[in-house]
Amino acid sequence: MDKVNLAAKFAAFQEQWSPKIVGEVNDAHVKLVKIQGEFVWHSHAGEDEMFLVVKGRMIVKLRERDVELAEGEFFVVPKGVEHCPVADEECQILMIEPKGTLNTGDAGGERTVIEPERI
Amino acid sequence: MDKVNLAAKFAAFQEQWSPKIVGEVNDAHVKLVKIQGEFVWHSHAGEDEMFLVVKGRMIVKLRERDVELAEGEFFVVPKGVEHCPVADEECQILMIEPKGTLNTGDAGGERTVIEPERI
Repeated sequence: MDKVNLAAKFAAFQEQWSPKIVGEVNDAHVKLVKIQGEFVWHSHAGEDEMFLVVKGRMIVKLRERDVELAEGEFFVVPKGVEHCPVADEECQILMIEPKGTLNTGDAGGERTVIEPERI
Repeated sequence: MDKVNLAAKFAAFQEQWSPKIVGEVNDAHVKLVKIQGEFVWHSHAGEDEMFLVVKGRMIVKLRERDVELAEGEFFVVPKGVEHCPVADEECQILMIEPKGTLNTGDAGGERTVIEPERI
């Protein structure tokens, strides 16, 4: 039951595409992740996923359009909707999603983080 | 299914202590609120409540201590824990809490917002 300083937490890890758990609120985890480059297309059958850009810029690619997010902007990918996160330069994101949500959703593969670290 | 720009949403209302719904993620609402002064002591029997300071500073008073939050810091008040939000100057906050959570929790009273506006 401590407060969380986002900048301090982001400074505590360098890995990209590896979500870190920094809090929980009801049945959801609050995760921080650094991304750069393109991820894998995937969806989450049962979970909405919120992306809030804390620093930098990113694109949430959807099959029919791109959602460009700048600092201070968020987007919720509804459950079941295919998406692919992309960032040209490193981008820091806060995510809210149900506990147990996998970063690669239904796609699986080598970029899956089974148990995100708590920091 | 649109992105949300926090600064634009905050610019769209002036009222203090009146949470606005700007998104939903699973069973939770994403709310924005402007606060200044002292609220009422209350708790939420069944709901954790996340406060993320977007602009300004606030204090989440708990019975046994104060949690001071600056821009870019968040705190989750666990269900059942009495708290009282306070801000000397206007503070802009993003909140995550289950749909239907009342701002005054179990305290009720004239500052209760039964149906927060969607903006």
